[in-house]
Amino acid sequence: MKRTLIKGCSILTMREGELPFVGDLLIEGERIAEIGPAIEPKQPVDEVITGVGMVAMPGLINAHNHASMSLLRAFSDDLKLMDWLDKKMLPAEGRMTPEDVYWGTMLGAAEMIASGTTSFADMYVHMNQVAQAVQDSGMRASLTRGVVFLEDDGGKRMTEALHLIDTWSGAANGRISTMLGPHAPYTCPPQPLSEIIDLARSRQIPIHIHLAETVEEVEKIRNRYNQTPTQYLYELGMFTDNHVLLAHAVHLSTEDVRLLRRMRGGVSHNPVSNLKLGCGIAPVRDMLEQGITVGLGTDGAGSATTLDMFAEIKAATWLQKLQHGDPTLLPAEQVLRMATIESAKLLQIDHEVGTLEAGKKADLILINLNKPHMQPVHDLHALIAYSATGADVDTTIVNGEILMKNRQFTHISWEELRREATMRAARLVEGL
Amino acid sequence: MKRTLIKGCSILTMREGELPFVGDLLIEGERIAEIGPAIEPKQPVDEVITGVGMVAMPGLINAHNHASMSLLRAFSDDLKLMDWLDKKMLPAEGRMTPEDVYWGTMLGAAEMIASGTTSFADMYVHMNQVAQAVQDSGMRASLTRGVVFLEDDGGKRMTEALHLIDTWSGAANGRISTMLGPHAPYTCPPQPLSEIIDLARSRQIPIHIHLAETVEEVEKIRNRYNQTPTQYLYELGMFTDNHVLLAHAVHLSTEDVRLLRRMRGGVSHNPVSNLKLGCGIAPVRDMLEQGITVGLGTDGAGSATTLDMFAEIKAATWLQKLQHGDPTLLPAEQVLRMATIESAKLLQIDHEVGTLEAGKKADLILINLNKPHMQPVHDLHALIAYSATGADVDTTIVNGEILMKNRQFTHISWEELRREATMRAARLVEGL
Repeated sequence: MKRTLIKGCSILTMREGELPFVGDLLIEGERIAEIGPAIEPKQPVDEVITGVGMVAMPGLINAHNHASMSLLRAFSDDLKLMDWLDKKMLPAEGRMTPEDVYWGTMLGAAEMIASGTTSFADMYVHMNQVAQAVQDSGMRASLTRGVVFLEDDGGKRMTEALHLIDTWSGAANGRISTMLGPHAPYTCPPQPLSEIIDLARSRQIPIHIHLAETVEEVEKIRNRYNQTPTQYLYELGMFTDNHVLLAHAVHLSTEDVRLLRRMRGGVSHNPVSNLKLGCGIAPVRDMLEQGITVGLGTDGAGSATTLDMFAEIKAATWLQKLQHGDPTLLPAEQVLRMATIESAKLLQIDHEVGTLEAGKKADLILINLNKPHMQPVHDLHALIAYSATGADVDTTIVNGEILMKNRQFTHISWEELRREATMRAARLVEGL
Repeated sequence: MKRTLIKGCSILTMREGELPFVGDLLIEGERIAEIGPAIEPKQPVDEVITGVGMVAMPGLINAHNHASMSLLRAFSDDLKLMDWLDKKMLPAEGRMTPEDVYWGTMLGAAEMIASGTTSFADMYVHMNQVAQAVQDSGMRASLTRGVVFLEDDGGKRMTEALHLIDTWSGAANGRISTMLGPHAPYTCPPQPLSEIIDLARSRQIPIHIHLAETVEEVEKIRNRYNQTPTQYLYELGMFTDNHVLLAHAVHLSTEDVRLLRRMRGGVSHNPVSNLKLGCGIAPVRDMLEQGITVGLGTDGAGSATTLDMFAEIKAATWLQKLQHGDPTLLPAEQVLRMATIESAKLLQIDHEVGTLEAGKKADLILINLNKPHMQPVHDLHALIAYSATGADVDTTIVNGEILMKNRQFTHISWEELRREATMRAARLVEGL
């Protein structure tokens, strides 16, 4: 069992209200063995990492992603939502082979590791390849095959969704978990959606679904069912004894928020994507007041352009301050908790990761403070929330394995990945 | 005269509508001598920089800053505006010595150089020290002594304001220019403000002033003068034959925007500060429709935390998309122009910098694309606007001098600066 000692860093455990302190972290195998002011290991350690001038904190957890779409980064921007989707994204995605999805996910994983994200929730297609990329990259992920019922596919998508769950749950030393992914209210009619909800409940499989991302979606569901999208899911029983990860939840009425107040799971707030597509501001303050768990996600790079969770951290707090004209909303520590332990709850991995505690899995990052924009050091939470970017992450560790050190990847061959991504991306967008 | 050849980079000139192309840049002394697909220098060059895999673009121009406040970065966040100002910022700033201002400005300059900003507009106190730091750091700046009339100071502030202009205009090989800085409508009563306006007009000195940052300011001016802040300045003749740099301009009525439509100068939009303090969204779309020049600035690190202009670029376009529910607003190329040539117009340096053109001063940056979040390369404008951060800047050149190369400072001693900043910052905030 490998033993790694990180010495002399500032430690943000992200346990609520815990003050930063200077100390050491001992990793044994996959887990944090000890955290304290000055650790004297009882057994020899294999590697000592100097953490002086660094901040150790839990790895960030991206609660809603489509990692393969990294191949379509900066391909289609500043367009009306429907033009973006119909003229650019869907045609390019339609060309994606399983191998494209593998390399796209690897590119997303490389970006996430390089910007301090250690876990992510992903919904996409060709999920065997996504899972393979998670395994190869060393990351932790909760994977979902998105299921839409826009045309009859003979049950192909559901078959793949269940295959993913049966094949990959618990794989990669437990780094991979899975969810069921009915895509969204507007792509899932009541009959098949009920069946998925019941199946999820009976098999205790969590659900990952998009909800109320746009005004257009709300209108569509209103016209079809005379309900809000949230009511539609609620009436079908989705929130009865199911753990549900809701992505976006931008357009919720006061009554919608109330309907969700006892839900298991919660909401992935994805502010950068919502801003870039002009969708609106999710009612985060109101959801938190109702005790709903709110984590952070990026959505895919097709809309968000980057998977840097530090951008989401900033955007999330800015938007609540803006919307309510109140700069005290979502203070730094709280928004950092959203990006770590609150997101962990959404992925049902909060017992293992999301805070730094002895006994938990060693998913953590070191942030380098030795830069002009990270000096002087007054309040560490504020400094990291409001000034850090992913580029300040020096070291990324998942499940006790170092995936990046001194900004160099240890598991990913960047030159090969870059070549594959460039070649495949060019083919996907040719002529579009 | 030193000759530097940058070879094989992608070039974004930021001239309107000009497509990116791959080519070389030749710098001779302070100026760009040539830009083209493949330059064969007629005379020997002193230095060749390989630009392969890099983007060359104009250095970013920060149109509103208080650089010394970098010492108060992350000292005071998530507070009500008046608590932030009265309990934290003003007491800490009250302790600032001239030497503190020098080192605070150097820290701000280091951050700006490291994040691709080559010019900035600054309003503060102890401006001799700010100017000295500009000279020593190698940056370009337009400097202003902020003048408030909250109590009778025997004309001290005005004396210092004029001393700055007489002493430093054109200094540091022309890198320093100056403005007159009546602080804001609510700190400048009509009589002294009129005198400043007339003086500025008769001596042809540009003006830098805060305007309509908060709802409280609008109410205050309404109560005193039964006018909007914009009307107040307009009626005093500020926009008649004066070049005026307006900072913030968040709370403008439709009529206010119309009053500004023929103004010389324009507005520094500072979205991150406006978001963090919960101030609101400036009517950027409407100002642009009226032909008002809008550039970008950060405001001080006391509110914005970081001086990274790439954060302002993103926030600016996000907020217009959000406010109008229209993702086509402020597309990538336009918002990059706001951070370069449009800001240059506000500082009256657009004839010298802000675009890459033969004959202009060599103020430019190289951005490294060899990173996961900058691959693949579809649209360069979108990639830089929506995915780059200051940390992607590899090389920063001002007035033909390389100030950072391969992310290493050439003019700034970072260890000394860090030591000074840490020590001084601790003293400023002690007990607050």
